[in-house]
Amino acid sequence: MNLDKKVEVFKSLQETLSAFGVARSLLNWDMSTGGSKKGMNYRAKTIGIFTMKAFEITTSEAMKSCLDVLGANLDELDEITRRMYVLHKKEYEKIIKIPKEEARAYAELQAKSQIIWEEAKEAQDYSMFKDILGEIIDYQKKFVEYRGYEAHPYNPLLDDYEEGMTVEILDEYFENLKNSIVPLLKDITATELPYNTSFLTKSFPIEKQKEFCIQLMEDLGFDYDAGEVKESVHPFTNGMNINDVRLTVRYFENLMTSSLFSAAHEGGHAIYEQKIDEKLEFTGLDTGVSSGIHESQSRMYENIICRSKAFWTYYYPTLVSYFPEELKDVTVDDFYAGINRVENSFIRVEADELTYSLHIIIRYEIEKAIMTDEVTVDELPSLWNAKYKEYLGLDVPNDELGILQDVHWSFGLFGYFPTYSIGSAYGSQFAHYLKEAVDFDGDLEKGNYKNVNEWLHKHIHQYGSLKTPEEIIVAATGKRFDSKYYVEYLTNKYKSLYNL
Amino acid sequence: MNLDKKVEVFKSLQETLSAFGVARSLLNWDMSTGGSKKGMNYRAKTIGIFTMKAFEITTSEAMKSCLDVLGANLDELDEITRRMYVLHKKEYEKIIKIPKEEARAYAELQAKSQIIWEEAKEAQDYSMFKDILGEIIDYQKKFVEYRGYEAHPYNPLLDDYEEGMTVEILDEYFENLKNSIVPLLKDITATELPYNTSFLTKSFPIEKQKEFCIQLMEDLGFDYDAGEVKESVHPFTNGMNINDVRLTVRYFENLMTSSLFSAAHEGGHAIYEQKIDEKLEFTGLDTGVSSGIHESQSRMYENIICRSKAFWTYYYPTLVSYFPEELKDVTVDDFYAGINRVENSFIRVEADELTYSLHIIIRYEIEKAIMTDEVTVDELPSLWNAKYKEYLGLDVPNDELGILQDVHWSFGLFGYFPTYSIGSAYGSQFAHYLKEAVDFDGDLEKGNYKNVNEWLHKHIHQYGSLKTPEEIIVAATGKRFDSKYYVEYLTNKYKSLYNL
Repeated sequence: MNLDKKVEVFKSLQETLSAFGVARSLLNWDMSTGGSKKGMNYRAKTIGIFTMKAFEITTSEAMKSCLDVLGANLDELDEITRRMYVLHKKEYEKIIKIPKEEARAYAELQAKSQIIWEEAKEAQDYSMFKDILGEIIDYQKKFVEYRGYEAHPYNPLLDDYEEGMTVEILDEYFENLKNSIVPLLKDITATELPYNTSFLTKSFPIEKQKEFCIQLMEDLGFDYDAGEVKESVHPFTNGMNINDVRLTVRYFENLMTSSLFSAAHEGGHAIYEQKIDEKLEFTGLDTGVSSGIHESQSRMYENIICRSKAFWTYYYPTLVSYFPEELKDVTVDDFYAGINRVENSFIRVEADELTYSLHIIIRYEIEKAIMTDEVTVDELPSLWNAKYKEYLGLDVPNDELGILQDVHWSFGLFGYFPTYSIGSAYGSQFAHYLKEAVDFDGDLEKGNYKNVNEWLHKHIHQYGSLKTPEEIIVAATGKRFDSKYYVEYLTNKYKSLYNL
Repeated sequence: MNLDKKVEVFKSLQETLSAFGVARSLLNWDMSTGGSKKGMNYRAKTIGIFTMKAFEITTSEAMKSCLDVLGANLDELDEITRRMYVLHKKEYEKIIKIPKEEARAYAELQAKSQIIWEEAKEAQDYSMFKDILGEIIDYQKKFVEYRGYEAHPYNPLLDDYEEGMTVEILDEYFENLKNSIVPLLKDITATELPYNTSFLTKSFPIEKQKEFCIQLMEDLGFDYDAGEVKESVHPFTNGMNINDVRLTVRYFENLMTSSLFSAAHEGGHAIYEQKIDEKLEFTGLDTGVSSGIHESQSRMYENIICRSKAFWTYYYPTLVSYFPEELKDVTVDDFYAGINRVENSFIRVEADELTYSLHIIIRYEIEKAIMTDEVTVDELPSLWNAKYKEYLGLDVPNDELGILQDVHWSFGLFGYFPTYSIGSAYGSQFAHYLKEAVDFDGDLEKGNYKNVNEWLHKHIHQYGSLKTPEEIIVAATGKRFDSKYYVEYLTNKYKSLYNL
């Protein structure tokens, strides 16, 4: 069979995988956004069938034969096909090394584990979760051994969510971050913010919040002809196709700003997915390239744009027009200070921009220790609590607010947490060069988001998964990833806000 | 390989087909109910992939081998597996006899044909559509020859939509119907209805119509925890799973009763799908068995229940509570007469219960003539118009109101129309025996639908596709299908209404 023919087969396998992906996305969307209550079981079963069929295709003889032929002719492939090859080859090598029986047993364990985690969290009792977490960790370590690794056993897990990410890079990154944030935070907690931020917990009618968030996302660039917005308990974005990107927001009557920034955050994810080049449809490259790059875009819109002074200089009157009564005594300076107020807290997902990365550093250091057997499952809570004391000065009162707060480990998501922080850091690096090319503050002060969107589209969004995270960063900024931009951004922003 | 193992493979092939079916249903649902505008192309492409993959499975070597082994051991199969075998075997034999190239060319023709039909209808010009319709008909005839048939070339097409249906059965059925309806209709059109039916075209606020229809469907038995109701231009029901049955209604401000009965009609389809036994999930038998049986249930709820005097005796005050102003001078007798008024008209989908079957008889006679070469495509409009004159006394003014009114032929749906009428006739036969078992009028007059629903569930709904249409009818009524029940029902109802 000649190469062209083989490429055709390869692409048709991918089209089928893409179709299965669409089906799973749709079913998940229905599950999370109010599809028929009694339909949960059949949806879970159908998703299971698609997952299994996708696994069969990914590891099939047909796929292997395509990979062999394409791999021997890499120079003759166009850019898209070559990148498709690289990602499939990687996935194939990863899966094929893990014995099927163990993969199946692990999948069953994952399903059980989430339920046990929920029960343990509810009961605030880590001891209920400890044993199954130990089993999950054992599998993770075994799988890493099967797969093989360079330098550090944590590396393959980091690479699963952030292509090319290593302990070496992250150690340096988190060290720099810690060295600047921890002292800054000490100064901040000793300072009183000279603004009235009592509006933060006042009551704002939900219906008005919805209307405002819909307009905000439209103004930021979300295309309602190529997507949909609904409500759910945990906000998420589901990019089932470039022209069909769905997101959810959750609204709290007494935490309006939380609703607003969840909308801006998911809006950022969604705009990224909508702006991917259509030529990548059905290639498997038509989605954001990594968790980190994705998070860089959600946090670009949430934080760098929507928590900036320049943004609210123009947009605050719009917000006030939705809530004239509620905001009548709140100045734009009060508002800006309120949405950027720093507060040490136990819960990652409620953290402000500055302390957020400390929550991540803690998880990163713990995961690394787990992978090198420096901590046992029994010791995890005390390690957790010690680190919260050290970095955030907090005494963790119970397991629910401590070691049990995140769902991730219950389904074996080790290596994922760092992408949350890395995403913010990527975002700052992008923003640094974006601000060199575009009059960022000037544009935002005029309510003009066109130039910003165009820069992001040109340097990041359009590529989907065609380039690696590192390729995107280097092409957009001329530099490899560097923590200094994020440190600089945080230091400047918070020193200025707190008059330090 | 032993039989058990083979049955397992067979069932797993079916599970995959069921999953593909769910995916296609979901995508279709999105396309018809306001999913992202720009997402039309990717959805069509994804549906195409699933259709192709399903075709591959249905005609695969794996399937053939299952069918061979199961077919040689029919006595050892349980009821569900045997029925699954019968339906798959039939499908396999049908598809496998048609050369792949011709099937593909025909599929392309179908896609083109619908667009041309739309243009021709818009232009009221049959000559634009004639040639491609001729090609479609030629394919249909060729396919029937490939497949082979007994007695009449129209039979395989009838059987496609109504298992076991033949020209012999339909000839007798339609003859009986015609002989009773045509003279009755002559008497009716010579009679003035002594009621005020001007409310039929008055304005009723759409929002109130929606609220009423939602309540009506709930009262009739639709389970909102196992389904969803939206709006669309062409009402339809999409039973993607027993626990996820979705339907649409369309609302007209100046045709409230049309909205109402489209809700009752689709509600009937949906209740049938929701009440299928859960043990049939993922067997391919978890859907209504045929178009005729399905239509018997939609028309059971729409006509036999919701156009009855007994129903409105109880339910009319509820309707009035939604529209107190609009209905203040309309008595329940006026209302009952209005919703059952007979009127000769050109358009099938707007026809009343009595004239409806005449529209179907015309299509049946024309399709039969097509399949036996008794009419050419050139002659179709004049044949159509002559029959409308003969049976309904109408002069068809143009092709849009005549030969071009239905979409069916444009995608090769020959043999489908009869199921619309047969469904009503099945429904009357069911109703006859239902009324022997249940105090039908007494229950409806008390707003009690429980006994009626239970009877329908027990005799029809639960089986899904486990039994053939004929098996269901014989088991439920003790008799084979007989046109006399429908003739009796129509004659009694309309003689009484028109005092004849």
